[in-house]
Amino acid sequence: MKAAIYEGNQTIRIEECVPVDPSPDEVRIAVAYAGICGTDLHVYHGRMDHRVTMPHVMGHEMSGIVEAIGAGVTHVSVGDRVVVMPLISCGQCPACQAGHEHICQRLKFIGIETPGGFQSSVTVPAHTVLPIPRALSLQLGALIEPLAVACHDVRIGGVRSGELSVILGGGPIGALIALVARANGAKVLVSEINPYRLELLEKMGIDTINPHESDIAEHVNLLTEGAGCDVVFEVTSSAAGARLMTQLPRTRGRIVVVGIFNDPPQVDLHRFFWRELKLFGARVYEREDFEQAIAWATSGKLPLGLLVRDIYPLELLQEGFRLMESGGGVMKILLNCAGDGTTSLAKEG
Amino acid sequence: MKAAIYEGNQTIRIEECVPVDPSPDEVRIAVAYAGICGTDLHVYHGRMDHRVTMPHVMGHEMSGIVEAIGAGVTHVSVGDRVVVMPLISCGQCPACQAGHEHICQRLKFIGIETPGGFQSSVTVPAHTVLPIPRALSLQLGALIEPLAVACHDVRIGGVRSGELSVILGGGPIGALIALVARANGAKVLVSEINPYRLELLEKMGIDTINPHESDIAEHVNLLTEGAGCDVVFEVTSSAAGARLMTQLPRTRGRIVVVGIFNDPPQVDLHRFFWRELKLFGARVYEREDFEQAIAWATSGKLPLGLLVRDIYPLELLQEGFRLMESGGGVMKILLNCAGDGTTSLAKEG
Repeated sequence: MKAAIYEGNQTIRIEECVPVDPSPDEVRIAVAYAGICGTDLHVYHGRMDHRVTMPHVMGHEMSGIVEAIGAGVTHVSVGDRVVVMPLISCGQCPACQAGHEHICQRLKFIGIETPGGFQSSVTVPAHTVLPIPRALSLQLGALIEPLAVACHDVRIGGVRSGELSVILGGGPIGALIALVARANGAKVLVSEINPYRLELLEKMGIDTINPHESDIAEHVNLLTEGAGCDVVFEVTSSAAGARLMTQLPRTRGRIVVVGIFNDPPQVDLHRFFWRELKLFGARVYEREDFEQAIAWATSGKLPLGLLVRDIYPLELLQEGFRLMESGGGVMKILLNCAGDGTTSLAKEG
Repeated sequence: MKAAIYEGNQTIRIEECVPVDPSPDEVRIAVAYAGICGTDLHVYHGRMDHRVTMPHVMGHEMSGIVEAIGAGVTHVSVGDRVVVMPLISCGQCPACQAGHEHICQRLKFIGIETPGGFQSSVTVPAHTVLPIPRALSLQLGALIEPLAVACHDVRIGGVRSGELSVILGGGPIGALIALVARANGAKVLVSEINPYRLELLEKMGIDTINPHESDIAEHVNLLTEGAGCDVVFEVTSSAAGARLMTQLPRTRGRIVVVGIFNDPPQVDLHRFFWRELKLFGARVYEREDFEQAIAWATSGKLPLGLLVRDIYPLELLQEGFRLMESGGGVMKILLNCAGDGTTSLAKEG
């Protein structure tokens, strides 16, 4: 097997490794595809070195085929097509005790605290492995994790049919939120500045607005006869997004904070008071979101395939990072982790 | 009748005036007591001159006795003991249409946009007038408005029995929130720095902490075995409060923004993401909160009387402002608006 190994200092080396035999309650997966996420780019840039033990294998958006199962594993068998919900919670902390295992106070995230999917074989706890239906391709399977994020965000935002959702930031997560909100019957508007992403969003039939060219608050007021929108999803992690998010919602409108803010931005708390706004932080997903994501992706009702910009061989991970850093024409890049493309695609059948 | 008239420039003059006869659907009230609120102090300092038409009569926390009713008024009669819910909404704007009349987009607030209770007679729309039971004194009646704020805040915060509520700021509103949350079965802890207020809160049996002397986050973690509290009420409108409010709640804990922030503070949105916190803006009250406040005050279960520092004659309004400005030993000051104390107190019988 091959693995893309991060050694710190923006260095990835591709190495031959020995697959890890599954212990009891573990599953070994032949990774088919793994998506590159902004979080992986953060790891690559060294910003998460405090959470990573080097040498490290990143990657938490993956699909594959079960290669081996440890003792006690009954819900999947060798040969099953699967995805991984990459959360390992402790079960003991106050968050777990309160039923919030997905935001466990000692959460381990596969691909950050433990080895991830940027390798041709990965061994993970059995409870993180979910089978997927035949009708769902392994390529789209690699999108289930970010799609589950979007399902969680839309659920936390309580999006209802007929409501107007404004999504600030039209990268992969923003685009997926728009698709899921729309699938829930909401009207959606995505604010984005990147021309490639704007074009891709329009291609998916999603209304967009470029905040460098138009006044979003004015536009939203026009659309809603002065009321404001029902929900805002903040997915930019920017000071501008934090400023905009309070300007758009109607009285008692909701704001979902999806973006990861490294520094505390200024937030107009007066507007929260004035309009009795609500704000909800949303992090990763719960099992029902993962299952919902699998259901949506399998239904074929979301144009998910359009999000995939390219499929690179695992060896070109660093190229993928470079493309993402360029800020240019990219939404989602998948890695083919099977060793060679033909093998992986052959598995698909 | 007498009125305390604000002429701008921190000037109040006491004048004899002619009572305003009630038009249809209006009620004229002989004001018994009126509380001085921080908002009145803001008006006095000129910070709300853009909302005020001078000469102006402030005051929105009032109790009194119906003196006259206009045509069409049926729910109160001359001689009834009443309080005023000082909100006049337009009924037309998107907020009103959505059922959020209390935060109407063209809301008029009695005592800011229209004449208030710092006079011996005030004429107001009938729908703002609520009768109070015999068992509730007119003095405590003047506390119904701020108590309704607290009822609203506690309701918005969804405070449940057994939960720990931390209230940042132990002024009149913070103290009332603590009393209402406790009456709902919650454990409460109030953070305050003013020694007079700390002593008064302790006298009411409320646990307090002085953030200049103790680490609140550490204390809350100790109290909750590392979980964090269930609800935080931010009532300080300070950068320090905005910083603290995100440090204290458990996963999926709630924050209620009660304080009025003139400038947008920095807010740790990462913590919202990390712990999936929720934040709710809360402004004034709805009718059910006013009714709840009357019910609590009438029950005698809350030590509301302790909040009243002094009862000044109307003529000493400016003295009241000075005492509040001193930042010293004050919680709530009432004005006796009846012209002379004996008359007002005689009415009480």
